[in-house]
Amino acid sequence: MEDIIVKYLEKPELKEPIFIEGLPGVGNVGKLAAEHMIEQLDAIQFAEIYSIYLPPQVLVNDDGLARLVNNKLYYKKDVGVDSRDLIILTGDYQGMTPQGQYQMTDKLLSIAKDMDANVIVSLGGYGQGQMVDKPRVLGAATNQKIVEIAKEYGTVFDEDHPSAGIVGASGLLLGLGQSVYDIDGICLMGETSGYFVDPTAAREVLEILTSYIGIEDMSYEELDDKAEEVEALTNKVLELEGSGMGKDSKREDLSYIG
Amino acid sequence: MEDIIVKYLEKPELKEPIFIEGLPGVGNVGKLAAEHMIEQLDAIQFAEIYSIYLPPQVLVNDDGLARLVNNKLYYKKDVGVDSRDLIILTGDYQGMTPQGQYQMTDKLLSIAKDMDANVIVSLGGYGQGQMVDKPRVLGAATNQKIVEIAKEYGTVFDEDHPSAGIVGASGLLLGLGQSVYDIDGICLMGETSGYFVDPTAAREVLEILTSYIGIEDMSYEELDDKAEEVEALTNKVLELEGSGMGKDSKREDLSYIG
Amino acid sequence: MEDIIVKYLEKPELKEPIFIEGLPGVGNVGKLAAEHMIEQLDAIQFAEIYSIYLPPQVLVNDDGLARLVNNKLYYKKDVGVDSRDLIILTGDYQGMTPQGQYQMTDKLLSIAKDMDANVIVSLGGYGQGQMVDKPRVLGAATNQKIVEIAKEYGTVFDEDHPSAGIVGASGLLLGLGQSVYDIDGICLMGETSGYFVDPTAAREVLEILTSYIGIEDMSYEELDDKAEEVEALTNKVLELEGSGMGKDSKREDLSYIG
Amino acid sequence: MEDIIVKYLEKPELKEPIFIEGLPGVGNVGKLAAEHMIEQLDAIQFAEIYSIYLPPQVLVNDDGLARLVNNKLYYKKDVGVDSRDLIILTGDYQGMTPQGQYQMTDKLLSIAKDMDANVIVSLGGYGQGQMVDKPRVLGAATNQKIVEIAKEYGTVFDEDHPSAGIVGASGLLLGLGQSVYDIDGICLMGETSGYFVDPTAAREVLEILTSYIGIEDMSYEELDDKAEEVEALTNKVLELEGSGMGKDSKREDLSYIG
Repeated sequence: MEDIIVKYLEKPELKEPIFIEGLPGVGNVGKLAAEHMIEQLDAIQFAEIYSIYLPPQVLVNDDGLARLVNNKLYYKKDVGVDSRDLIILTGDYQGMTPQGQYQMTDKLLSIAKDMDANVIVSLGGYGQGQMVDKPRVLGAATNQKIVEIAKEYGTVFDEDHPSAGIVGASGLLLGLGQSVYDIDGICLMGETSGYFVDPTAAREVLEILTSYIGIEDMSYEELDDKAEEVEALTNKVLELEGSGMGKDSKREDLSYIG
Repeated sequence: MEDIIVKYLEKPELKEPIFIEGLPGVGNVGKLAAEHMIEQLDAIQFAEIYSIYLPPQVLVNDDGLARLVNNKLYYKKDVGVDSRDLIILTGDYQGMTPQGQYQMTDKLLSIAKDMDANVIVSLGGYGQGQMVDKPRVLGAATNQKIVEIAKEYGTVFDEDHPSAGIVGASGLLLGLGQSVYDIDGICLMGETSGYFVDPTAAREVLEILTSYIGIEDMSYEELDDKAEEVEALTNKVLELEGSGMGKDSKREDLSYIG
Repeated sequence: MEDIIVKYLEKPELKEPIFIEGLPGVGNVGKLAAEHMIEQLDAIQFAEIYSIYLPPQVLVNDDGLARLVNNKLYYKKDVGVDSRDLIILTGDYQGMTPQGQYQMTDKLLSIAKDMDANVIVSLGGYGQGQMVDKPRVLGAATNQKIVEIAKEYGTVFDEDHPSAGIVGASGLLLGLGQSVYDIDGICLMGETSGYFVDPTAAREVLEILTSYIGIEDMSYEELDDKAEEVEALTNKVLELEGSGMGKDSKREDLSYIG
Repeated sequence: MEDIIVKYLEKPELKEPIFIEGLPGVGNVGKLAAEHMIEQLDAIQFAEIYSIYLPPQVLVNDDGLARLVNNKLYYKKDVGVDSRDLIILTGDYQGMTPQGQYQMTDKLLSIAKDMDANVIVSLGGYGQGQMVDKPRVLGAATNQKIVEIAKEYGTVFDEDHPSAGIVGASGLLLGLGQSVYDIDGICLMGETSGYFVDPTAAREVLEILTSYIGIEDMSYEELDDKAEEVEALTNKVLELEGSGMGKDSKREDLSYIG
């Protein structure tokens, strides 16, 4: 079989879409954000991607129906005050090996290029190794102009930037996009502990992205509900690990979990 | 060399055969079931598959004769009350890497498609992490109609379905079959501890499969004999691990074996 | 670069040569035997093999000269009472991955086939997990006729045959040779502890091989000298690990070293 | 995507350049040396290399700008008393797998060959497993003539040569260079503990290289400054690990750090 199979359900004509990535990763922040956006915007799936770089696995739903793990591409036209077109990528897994990461990202970029995408926004979490009360959204971009625009919308670019760089699809879409496909991009990373799924960080990321796109009416109810569930669970875990822990002691303990 | 070499002994003409897979896996349930079926039906081997995705290994028999590890395809015509044709796959190993799993499954599906197979039945074990008294057969299928038929024959589709999905050849045959080859399928998984080879689970799986195919006269004597041997061994192991263990304590202890 | 590069120094014309393999492995038995044979017979190197499947490494000799790790092919014409031609393979490493093992073995077999080889003899060690006083030579072959001949020369084929099969180049040369290249073969495995380099096992293997080929005048002085050195070292290690150990206790202790 | 992408900024015409490699490795000696040389000579970057064999990662600088990890090629014409042309290679990472090491080295050698390079000088560290007071520069070369020349400039070729050979790009450039590209070379390895970044070893390596090339006016101020910083840090680490340690005890303790 081909290493990567793209199965198109339709081939939408889009005008300079924003390519938004939200695959599984740290705190699942990117995936939560992308899925929330897909649902809120009623985005339409137009392609499914299978690959030897994904796990050899089917997922089974509650009805007993199995489907091959994949990545999915959605689109939505005329979004927000600026009537922007969007492509949104999410999926079950990222490519599993370095080679798989490169080849899948390259395939996605060739699709983005074909569809005339003019900017990439990759969404993710930035693991701080400790509980985060009010997550900031950290950024990294491929040119200075995007950095300036993103600052206006609240993205933080400071000395806390990820010193080890950004690993995986979120980083590679920017890097290969810039170096090989001549498409600029930005990565928005919601601060998160790195130990738990984090809908709160996903919301923070989305608020910046939607205000940039000019979406004014997105509801975050579902993300907030999920955040409450996760917080309840998280507190239970932390209680089990010891009582009366201050912030600092938490950090120490948690660093052994991740 | 080619990554996968298919060596045909003959090319049988079959009419819409059922493609049955029983490669090694959890509890070796699928392989035990497939081998039992091959023997009971006097199925005829028609192909041998070698691959760089299998271990670089020969097996040696009691006469000192060595043979390369492989997968084998058998066929049997006019089986059961409905005169169905069958293809049965078994082998020494599954593909060893994710890429190997994908490429070998894809090759098998291309063979199945060429031979006009219209349904895939993959056989396996479902590891419960504890001893199982009366194994049920859990199912996952690629369409609702197959789910309904399988329920009629006693397959269980409930909330206990494998939440992590089905990994390996059994899952991938369904997933790639549906998504790329347009062949539907079902996976029948006999409940098993996951710690021992399990001929009892293999028998349960076979009873559902043979009643679906309409084979009425299959003997299970050999599987039952093997089951007794394994049970004797299992009991010895459990005795060694502690005396007077109830079900729950067993589970706890056994989870350290797997 | 090509995955495997064969650099020929010359292309000798041989008549139905015996292809003898002695790459590094258990106890380094095969490599010791092949190198001893090459030296004793003044065999001539005719090819060098480089590959991405070997470690990315140069070896440096006492003069500070570096050379790329490789496999080497030698030949010798008109050997022994039957005037047999020989090809002898040895090298620094075996292929490092399963795929590498398959591809390198396949390349070697295609060379053997081109040069009209009519039998493969792979040499190796069989790790017993305990010290071996008088190593036997165990065999595995691809047809019954070779088994019978090998028995005449003292090779042992019994219930102690390697139950896990033969992994690596020694096994794969037989398996792929038989299944894909239609060349039969035998693997001669000298019993060894598996914990130390074993020139004694190499000598036992060579004695059977040379008597089969009809070489009557091979000196084993160098192998015997090496064996004495290794024995001195081995005894020192065993002394360090405890004093007054009988055979059985040795086994237990040593099984933690390997 | 292609496995290795070479993006040329310009294609300089050079006359028999020396190809100098300084990628990350033991003590980062090679990379420090190459970067220092690039800076001191105002060498000009002419190519950037991206590859699936590098980590799937972007690096982010203090301004929040991301760039794909890569290898970089620089050149400088008419260097030193002999007016030699130089190509200098450095980068963020070496190839991550054996196959990646081979393929990237091969690509670099094909570039070197195309540009008429007539000798390769790979720079690296040689990990001694203990603190080194006055690092020597050990050498390994592909022919005796280069060994003799290198000795004149102070390179040490003695029984302390790396017994396990040289692993990675520094070794492979020599090995593939000699065996496949017919370009001779030498590896200069500065002795270093192997536990810390070592600008002192980098300076020693550079002094030999620059005296060979005939560069008379290179400043080592920056390397010396870095060396002082590292020494301060190193001493702090050693103090933390115990007080009053002699040389020998240091070695023992440090061997657990690496």
